[in-house]
Amino acid sequence: MDAVVFDVFGTVVDWRTGVAREFERAGTRAGVQADWLGLATAWRSRYAPTLLRVVSGEVPWRSLDELHRMMLDDVLTEHGLTGFTDTDRAELVSAWHRLSPWPDSRDGLSRLRETHITATLSNGSIALLIHLARVGGLPFDAILSAELIHSYKPDPKVYLMAGDLLEVPAPRLLMTACHLEDLRAAADVGLRTAYIPRPLEWGPGHPAAPAPDWVDLIATDIPDLARRLAP
Amino acid sequence: MDAVVFDVFGTVVDWRTGVAREFERAGTRAGVQADWLGLATAWRSRYAPTLLRVVSGEVPWRSLDELHRMMLDDVLTEHGLTGFTDTDRAELVSAWHRLSPWPDSRDGLSRLRETHITATLSNGSIALLIHLARVGGLPFDAILSAELIHSYKPDPKVYLMAGDLLEVPAPRLLMTACHLEDLRAAADVGLRTAYIPRPLEWGPGHPAAPAPDWVDLIATDIPDLARRLAP
Repeated sequence: MDAVVFDVFGTVVDWRTGVAREFERAGTRAGVQADWLGLATAWRSRYAPTLLRVVSGEVPWRSLDELHRMMLDDVLTEHGLTGFTDTDRAELVSAWHRLSPWPDSRDGLSRLRETHITATLSNGSIALLIHLARVGGLPFDAILSAELIHSYKPDPKVYLMAGDLLEVPAPRLLMTACHLEDLRAAADVGLRTAYIPRPLEWGPGHPAAPAPDWVDLIATDIPDLARRLAP
Repeated sequence: MDAVVFDVFGTVVDWRTGVAREFERAGTRAGVQADWLGLATAWRSRYAPTLLRVVSGEVPWRSLDELHRMMLDDVLTEHGLTGFTDTDRAELVSAWHRLSPWPDSRDGLSRLRETHITATLSNGSIALLIHLARVGGLPFDAILSAELIHSYKPDPKVYLMAGDLLEVPAPRLLMTACHLEDLRAAADVGLRTAYIPRPLEWGPGHPAAPAPDWVDLIATDIPDLARRLAP
């Protein structure tokens, strides 16, 4: 393997806890009580269908921040939470720029980078990913984002772009994610795939899916991935 | 200033010594004697006019590796150096992926990154820049390249792309280079400019140009730039 690219939300950083915490903070400011973890989940559950509408061409490309804002407005309206100001909402959208990594991410990426080129391959914007890497001290060699071609995963063009920019043929490029749709789309255009079934990604009481047989590699966390890929 | 983007060849890494050394190595293998520093200079002197022909649309976009190879073939033919094999030439093209940084670059970038977002903004490809950053231990937050829009500096679109991807307005974005054409083009689209007049960039006996009055900042090296930008 020449290079390893990473999904970020859920695979490298813990969006659920981070977003719920910022929801609670904004709610306290706005004098609102709610199920913050549930709201974080409701927000995130709009993510995949919204991005698919962009990929299909049904709606025009917009930055993830803009899409996050639209989804947030819908979620708040749906839950009757009209007390959040424009500033609160902007703050919540920027919460996705400040998420903490899973405890193993920084160390695992450092080790992996000793032997492999590493990069993000995320639907977050380049600026958002830079912010996350700085907040979490995540040592990627490069920040790659679907933004670079104004699309979103699982558009096959996103995975092919990564191989093109890294100058690595698809079979020498490993897509790493905790989401099987992401890996399936990467595999469909010839990339190798590593599945890290993050146990907390799906929320309390929702274990990660078992690894399907088409996945090339399964790792418990990023240090485990680094060990498995060590020359 | 929110972010600082860097020209790389000449500003962060020493292309002249590195390319001359690899020329000498390839020449020794091929049993050829020549003025290797002169050849490195002759190769590089074709760079700006070649890229300008791409920017003007006169010739279609090709990767810098491909353009380097075309320029190299021309230079070798011109100097009657036909003894270099295809492998030698490919090796020489890849020499641009292995250049050493100036002695201050690594430390300066580390310091600057504590207070500012830092990125490359180079005509080298993303893959080439990743290789240089890994070889030299250069801690950029992101690797940006003119390749991302299939153009080359001094195309104004390249500088605007950097602001767009970093989500930083042009007046909060500092372009750093040892070449005044690069800075002039950045200034023309509203970026701030920092001039580092690298004394060895122009070869023995050719001092760097004095700083013109339109440059926003002059620094002797990257640590000096970090000091001047420290909050």
